[in-house]
Amino acid sequence: METKIPYKIYLEEHEMPKQWYNVRADMKKKPAPILNPVTLNPVTVEELSAIFCEELAKQELDENTAYFDIPEEIRNFYKMYRPSPLVRAYCLEEKLGTPAHIYYKFEGNNTSGSHKLNSAIAQAYYAKKQGLKGVTTETGAGQWGTALSMACSYFDMDCQVYMVKCSYEQKPFRREVMRTYGAQVTPSPSMTTNIGRKINEEFPGTTGSLGCAISEAVEAAQSQDGYRYVLGSVLTQVLLHQSIIGLETKAALDKYGVKADMIIGCAGGGSNLGGLISPFAGEMLRGEGDYKLIAVEPSSCPSLTRGKYAYDYCDTGKVCPLQKMYTLGSGYIPSASHAGGLRYHGMSSVVSELYDQGLMEARSVKQTDVFQAAVDFARVEGILPAPESSHAIKVAIDEALKCKETGEAKNIVFGLTGTGYFDMYAYQKHNDGIMEDYIPTDEEIAKALAKLPKVDM
Amino acid sequence: METKIPYKIYLEEHEMPKQWYNVRADMKKKPAPILNPVTLNPVTVEELSAIFCEELAKQELDENTAYFDIPEEIRNFYKMYRPSPLVRAYCLEEKLGTPAHIYYKFEGNNTSGSHKLNSAIAQAYYAKKQGLKGVTTETGAGQWGTALSMACSYFDMDCQVYMVKCSYEQKPFRREVMRTYGAQVTPSPSMTTNIGRKINEEFPGTTGSLGCAISEAVEAAQSQDGYRYVLGSVLTQVLLHQSIIGLETKAALDKYGVKADMIIGCAGGGSNLGGLISPFAGEMLRGEGDYKLIAVEPSSCPSLTRGKYAYDYCDTGKVCPLQKMYTLGSGYIPSASHAGGLRYHGMSSVVSELYDQGLMEARSVKQTDVFQAAVDFARVEGILPAPESSHAIKVAIDEALKCKETGEAKNIVFGLTGTGYFDMYAYQKHNDGIMEDYIPTDEEIAKALAKLPKVDM
Repeated sequence: METKIPYKIYLEEHEMPKQWYNVRADMKKKPAPILNPVTLNPVTVEELSAIFCEELAKQELDENTAYFDIPEEIRNFYKMYRPSPLVRAYCLEEKLGTPAHIYYKFEGNNTSGSHKLNSAIAQAYYAKKQGLKGVTTETGAGQWGTALSMACSYFDMDCQVYMVKCSYEQKPFRREVMRTYGAQVTPSPSMTTNIGRKINEEFPGTTGSLGCAISEAVEAAQSQDGYRYVLGSVLTQVLLHQSIIGLETKAALDKYGVKADMIIGCAGGGSNLGGLISPFAGEMLRGEGDYKLIAVEPSSCPSLTRGKYAYDYCDTGKVCPLQKMYTLGSGYIPSASHAGGLRYHGMSSVVSELYDQGLMEARSVKQTDVFQAAVDFARVEGILPAPESSHAIKVAIDEALKCKETGEAKNIVFGLTGTGYFDMYAYQKHNDGIMEDYIPTDEEIAKALAKLPKVDM
Repeated sequence: METKIPYKIYLEEHEMPKQWYNVRADMKKKPAPILNPVTLNPVTVEELSAIFCEELAKQELDENTAYFDIPEEIRNFYKMYRPSPLVRAYCLEEKLGTPAHIYYKFEGNNTSGSHKLNSAIAQAYYAKKQGLKGVTTETGAGQWGTALSMACSYFDMDCQVYMVKCSYEQKPFRREVMRTYGAQVTPSPSMTTNIGRKINEEFPGTTGSLGCAISEAVEAAQSQDGYRYVLGSVLTQVLLHQSIIGLETKAALDKYGVKADMIIGCAGGGSNLGGLISPFAGEMLRGEGDYKLIAVEPSSCPSLTRGKYAYDYCDTGKVCPLQKMYTLGSGYIPSASHAGGLRYHGMSSVVSELYDQGLMEARSVKQTDVFQAAVDFARVEGILPAPESSHAIKVAIDEALKCKETGEAKNIVFGLTGTGYFDMYAYQKHNDGIMEDYIPTDEEIAKALAKLPKVDM
């Protein structure tokens, strides 16, 4: 007899994961090493420790340890907003008339509104443990900055956020959330760093970019005693922390004896997707299970589906290490997609390698279709999803409709990374019927790819 | 041996309440009857049914039925965002250094951001069941309008929201959330109703008021076939639906053998407070238990602590029935407090009667103290609370600090009704140190009270 699955599966506190999972340990072919941007040699823990906390530098480069204990302080913080629910989307299933069973792991039930907090608290913890005074970072739309502010306030650490100037001005509420948690928020480019002053001089009136904000944050960390720089995506340490999403998902499914047929996640820098699929990819790598893993990216920024697998810079300022990854080139400027969190030219090296090995497939979807899926979802499931998360919703609905045609009762699992409360400007465009799509031409992509750095590895 | 209490207590689906509780049934002295605003006689179900759905009119007037079955359709909707967690505030306790055990019932984990959805879904359901096409309502800050939009979209009902014009213009995001759920949002006063046109003519350029928006919404309901008006607070039917909060709270405490010493809630119209305390007040009325129940109101709008217990109009337009309640007079205009949800001149008749019978105490608190408590809370517990909810936080912290002095390990329970994501303008004022308090003078209050209607009952 089938156990009736509740609308929301919550793990008990004692069922929550006590370790993060490092999927690299189960990969026979590892991701290519990350390179020092100056020497182009593989970076060492020592070199990385000049920018990042030492413990995080170690996590970044450790290819062989499969499980890392989650320190008790972090587990206690997790208990305030985790476990996140694995929701059975009964109402969506009914609306679609599909025999498929749809599940989503919802990461939006915390003030940062997204999964970013899972890594922010870890990074703040290791900085505190190292005896640092504070950390610096950049933020675009503001979710990562908010998450880091919350984490730092919990550990009573200083938090300096360089916020892309146009967001700083257009999203004053995001800024205020960070200030409420005690963070110091500076519009970037600012006059407080050399690079900021230089950019302001060269481009008077510029409204900034994420690349510039990263450069300012790195400079700020290096010019103050007791500070390090932290980053919310792309890095393998971040994927490690985000594995909590996939581990909880798997534990919740196991609790009710549900075997997922496919796992769908949206892909920007790859941290949420990587975290969600890691335990499932690990099973596949160990020959213990088989899943269809699907990365969904915006058609305006199609790094997996139309990019090249090559070494590239992670940031436009070229101060972070180089990674081998699926990329459109660090000079590629995505059109003003409303899913700001997915406007990244590259993809986590671990996700890239899993994709290259054929363990995962990728799809790109149009923004207008994504918002229609978002609204359809919101109206029956209640939650107003972030535009980023809605990329996964779109493909989950597509797959559920395929099941309707074939009559298959597949178990579809997707990651709902966050809420869209701060994205109402984009929803307004959709509601007014004036949202547009942008798909880059082959020429545009070829032009950006032509500028990839020449690295022989 | 004490069972270790988890950070968050979630009821299992099968433990969720299947009935709402009507505290009036256990009151020996019932609240005074509500009166027809024209005849000043007690209203009948028939009269009420001209404005409200019939089933809701019955619930409004039923003093004797203790439990109402929650229809399955509503229970299914509840399962999408309920049970809400009862959170043990371990981090706040540690920060305060108090021996008290602090618990809060968090109602903010849904897109409306508050407890309002508990009644919105019930009201939409009964309207649907009656075969209506849609409902009309007013909204100020937008939480109620959002909740009703979500509920109507779930049942595929039309939803017409009259939104106070200044909020419509200052909170475009709230408006867009409602539109995303398919609601038709009209700035009030509008040119679509007689009363709206009249007010626009008399006061050109007016930015509207809740009283005016209510009058427009009632007129809109009465001038269209198949529409009824719905209201999100004050009414006893709303308290009935909100009893789900208190019932879940009690079930969660019972599950871990915790006996609450005090229950604290913020008080505007009284629906959240009434819902939270109902089951506890019921025990007291039946002589089965003893609790300290505390209503917390803003010092700028002190209906319980400085108002009069008398018959008054519920709305400035004087179209809704009169209630006997603690009131400052329907002409009292509260200062521009940032806790918009608590800017109401009166108080639910049930809460008023419980207070008058001495079952509950009331305190008024200053807005500057409230925001400081909100920030202290957010920084350790993560959740960014709504200004309204933070009134309860302030008093919970006060009580926990008293326990610190006396060494008592009391169990303090408070209601955290919602999140403050759409209140960042107010937080900004706090962050910038420019928030001010307003306490009305005795003369001001006396002046407003002098205009109470003369009703002999």
